[in-house]
Amino acid sequence: MTVELSPERVEESLDQLIFNGKGLIPAIIQDDESGDVLMLAWMDREAVRRTMTSGRVTFWSRSRQEYWRKGDTSGHRQYVRSIARDCDEDTLLVRVIQLGAACHTGSRSCFTDRELPAVHGVVERDEPEA
Amino acid sequence: MTVELSPERVEESLDQLIFNGKGLIPAIIQDDESGDVLMLAWMDREAVRRTMTSGRVTFWSRSRQEYWRKGDTSGHRQYVRSIARDCDEDTLLVRVIQLGAACHTGSRSCFTDRELPAVHGVVERDEPEA
Repeated sequence: MTVELSPERVEESLDQLIFNGKGLIPAIIQDDESGDVLMLAWMDREAVRRTMTSGRVTFWSRSRQEYWRKGDTSGHRQYVRSIARDCDEDTLLVRVIQLGAACHTGSRSCFTDRELPAVHGVVERDEPEA
Repeated sequence: MTVELSPERVEESLDQLIFNGKGLIPAIIQDDESGDVLMLAWMDREAVRRTMTSGRVTFWSRSRQEYWRKGDTSGHRQYVRSIARDCDEDTLLVRVIQLGAACHTGSRSCFTDRELPAVHGVVERDEPEA
């Protein structure tokens, strides 16, 4: 990518983010090609830094208490296409090229075939005011 | 929807979910038509129950400490199309019909025009084994 990504610019971006009491921020991972939501995992400041600067998605594993560069064990790597923060600065949306399965179960997405029963809402659009 | 949604079935589904130490679970909201990720917000057990059974997305507002049925003030309602849980049972993905803007800033999505600088990963696909 042609963007100049100086250490100062990276730290400025990181300074804008709000991490929770455990120093973590949730990252939604979306398939850049299909638009499918693949998974949600957590990053600390260093994991966001690595994700911004390396082109590969890195999480903080809460269960293992270690950095977890997605795909290093499985080969199912996630290559960064874009990173956005939300309006509250406390959630990230990372669009990726996903190799293979995002989920450790072997499913493409962690949400595949895991539907809850739900009533569908009947859409009522407001009448435009005269 | 034709699904039979008995109170028992709802509670069984709720029992499968893992809420965090504050009794909350993050819910990713995705536009069912465009596939765009619109926002992330939090639900407690009662908010998930209301979302499953009413056809309208309801959150728990951490800042206001109250239930927040999306669109009641703004008119920007979210009608449920599907709800899925992830492989760890600790994140929800709710696909919705979104009226108007999902974001309180007036943007369609809370992630609109909020990109961080990021290096794009160079995709290296493993050679298939001979």
